[in-house]
Amino acid sequence: MKKYLYLLAVIAILLSNTVLAQRAPGLNSPDLKPDQKVTFYYYSRTAKQVTLNGEFLKDPVPMTKDTSGVWSVTVGPVKPDVYPYFFNVDNVQISDPNNTHLFANERFKRSILDVHGPSPLVHSLQNVPHGKIDYRYYHSVTLDTLRRVLVYTPPGFDPAGKIKYPVLYLIHGGSDTEETWTKVGRANFIADNLIAAKKATPMIIVMPYGNVRPNQMSDFTNDVVKDVVPFIEDNYPVIKDRKSRAIAGFSVGGGQTLNIGLTNTDTFANIASYAPYTATEEFKKNFSSWSPDAKQLNDKLKLFTISVGTDDFLYESVKQNIAMFTEKGLDLKTYIVPGGHSWMNCKLFLATTLKEIFK
Amino acid sequence: MKKYLYLLAVIAILLSNTVLAQRAPGLNSPDLKPDQKVTFYYYSRTAKQVTLNGEFLKDPVPMTKDTSGVWSVTVGPVKPDVYPYFFNVDNVQISDPNNTHLFANERFKRSILDVHGPSPLVHSLQNVPHGKIDYRYYHSVTLDTLRRVLVYTPPGFDPAGKIKYPVLYLIHGGSDTEETWTKVGRANFIADNLIAAKKATPMIIVMPYGNVRPNQMSDFTNDVVKDVVPFIEDNYPVIKDRKSRAIAGFSVGGGQTLNIGLTNTDTFANIASYAPYTATEEFKKNFSSWSPDAKQLNDKLKLFTISVGTDDFLYESVKQNIAMFTEKGLDLKTYIVPGGHSWMNCKLFLATTLKEIFK
Repeated sequence: MKKYLYLLAVIAILLSNTVLAQRAPGLNSPDLKPDQKVTFYYYSRTAKQVTLNGEFLKDPVPMTKDTSGVWSVTVGPVKPDVYPYFFNVDNVQISDPNNTHLFANERFKRSILDVHGPSPLVHSLQNVPHGKIDYRYYHSVTLDTLRRVLVYTPPGFDPAGKIKYPVLYLIHGGSDTEETWTKVGRANFIADNLIAAKKATPMIIVMPYGNVRPNQMSDFTNDVVKDVVPFIEDNYPVIKDRKSRAIAGFSVGGGQTLNIGLTNTDTFANIASYAPYTATEEFKKNFSSWSPDAKQLNDKLKLFTISVGTDDFLYESVKQNIAMFTEKGLDLKTYIVPGGHSWMNCKLFLATTLKEIFK
Repeated sequence: MKKYLYLLAVIAILLSNTVLAQRAPGLNSPDLKPDQKVTFYYYSRTAKQVTLNGEFLKDPVPMTKDTSGVWSVTVGPVKPDVYPYFFNVDNVQISDPNNTHLFANERFKRSILDVHGPSPLVHSLQNVPHGKIDYRYYHSVTLDTLRRVLVYTPPGFDPAGKIKYPVLYLIHGGSDTEETWTKVGRANFIADNLIAAKKATPMIIVMPYGNVRPNQMSDFTNDVVKDVVPFIEDNYPVIKDRKSRAIAGFSVGGGQTLNIGLTNTDTFANIASYAPYTATEEFKKNFSSWSPDAKQLNDKLKLFTISVGTDDFLYESVKQNIAMFTEKGLDLKTYIVPGGHSWMNCKLFLATTLKEIFK
C-alpha cells in the first residue's frame, strides 16, 4: 500500500504542470565538454524546425531530432567566454528551458553559455574571496517611485568599519535591467578577481536601473545624481569626493554615462563609456553646441575613456563621438578593440576600467 | 550631415539583433487595468496559433492577431495575487518577451503577473522600511563546490550592531532556484510588511540552493546543517540557539524541510513544511520505521506545521504524511486551505509561519 502511494505521488509529480512542466528526461543543456565543444538540447515532439543562435556563431545552425523528440547540435570548440544564445523553434525565439542562466533583459529572452577554458578568465568564478551583492530599494524623488538598485560590496567589507570606499556607478544597456551587469557582465566576479590580484582598488559598485521613457532620458540623469548617489552615501561607508566617484555604462548606458558624467563633473571625476549609443535628444542638447573650457575640464577629469569594438554596429557613430570630444580639446583615452556590440567586449572594457580608477 | 549620422545610428540600432531583438513597437505586456482586467500582447507575424496559459486561468485562452502581427487577449478581472503564466506559440511554451519578471526555475520558463487590487496584499511592495537581500557565495564542504545563497536582512539591520537575530532557513521547490522565494514567493516583501506591522519578529531569512542530484538528497541535509548554518552564523549577528532557528520549504523543499528538521532537532526547534513532496528515498529511510520519543520531541519543537491546499495534486500524499506524524504522537499543527500546488498558496503559508515563529 505504501509503495503504491509512493508510485501514485511519483506519477502525479510527473504529470504536474506546475512542478515539472516541459521537462524532458534529464536534459543537460548546454553540455560543455573538456575540449570546449558544446552540445545543446531541446525537447519537442511537435516542432518542425529548431535552430541554435548564439553570439559564438556566425550563423544559426540547425538542430536535429532523434526518435524520442530530443533535438540537439554540437558546436565548437568555442573560445572561452560568456555568450548569449537562444533557440529558434518554428520561428519562435526562446531561451533554453533547461538552462537557469538567463540574460536579464526586458525585451528579449536569451540564455547564457559560460565556456571555461584551461585557465580562468577575468570574469570567472575563482577561488578568491568574494564580495556580495545587495538587492535594495530606494525612493527616487525625481521619478516619484521606488526603484531597485544592486550594490556590490568588496570582500572584507565592514559597513560599520573604518574603511571608506570609492564608488563606481555602472549602467546597463538599453532594455537590460539592473541585474544585467552581474548576471551577464559578471561585474562582481571581475571585481573579486582584480581585487584579489591587487590590480584593482577595493570599491563599491552601484548598478541602478537605467530605463526611463525615451523622452525622460534627462530624468535618469537627475535620478542618478540627486537620488542614487545620496542614497548610497547615506547607507554605505564611502569617500564623498568627486575623485572617488566614477561612472561607466554600456550602449544606451554608455550614452547616459557621457550625459551624466560630463554635465556633473562636480560629482564624477572618472567617466568610462563603452560602445555608447548617443542618438538621443539629451546627447544632442548637451553636446551639439557644447563649448567647454577644455583645460579646466581636463584638470577636473582623472579618467575619461571611450571603448568600442571595430565590428560594433555603432563603431562609426562612436568614432564621430571621439572626434567631437577630441576636437573640443578633451584628454580622451580610447580603447578600440576587435569584436562587436557585445557583452564579451563589455567585460573586457570593465576590467580595463577597474584597473585604472581610484589609484 | 550630423542629422544623417543620427538617422543612420537610429536605423542601425533598430536593425541590431543584439540591442533590440524581437521588439515590437511599444508592447506593454502584461497591461493591468484599474478594474483588474489584464491584456497580454505578443508580437509575431509568422505564428499560426498563440494561447495564453496562466495559473489565474482554468484553461488556456486563444490570442488573436491584428494586421500588424500583434497578438492579444484580455482576461479578468483577475483576483489580486502574483501568478505564473506563459504563451504557447505553435506548441512552443515561452515566457512573455516583454515582461522582465520571470519565474526563477531550471526547467521551465514562465513570466510573472502581479495583479494589484484596491488594497495592498501581504506580499505587495508597500511604503514601509525595506530589508535587503544579499547574494553571497559559500563553500560547501559537503558538496565540494561553491554555492550561492540569498540572505534577507530586515530593515534597520546593522551587521556590527548589538541586535542579534533569529534565522529562518527557507527552501524552494524542485527545479526552482535560490531566487524563487524572492522573485516568485516575495519572501522579502512579506517579511518587510509583517515586521512593519509588528506581526513578525525581525529576522534573517536564508534561502539556499536546494537542488542536488536525486540520489544525493541526504547530501543537501548535510549541506544545510554543516555548511549553510555555520556560514551564516560566522557572517551574521544571529542568535545561536535552536529555538531561534527555523526551517521551512515548499514542495520538494517541503519534503527536505521534514527530513532536515526532524532529524536535526538539536539545530532547529521550528519546522514548517508547505505541500511537501515526500516520495523520496530519504523520506522513506527516515520515517518508514521511525519510532520517536513523542513527548521528548514535542518538548523540543516549538513549532511543527504542515500546510497544503485541498486542490493540490499532493493533497492525498500530504494527508498520509499528516496521519503518519499524528499517529506517532507528534503535536502537529496543520493548515488546510483551498487552492492547489501553487506559489499563491505558498506566500500565504509563509506569511502564517512568519507570524508564529520566534515569538
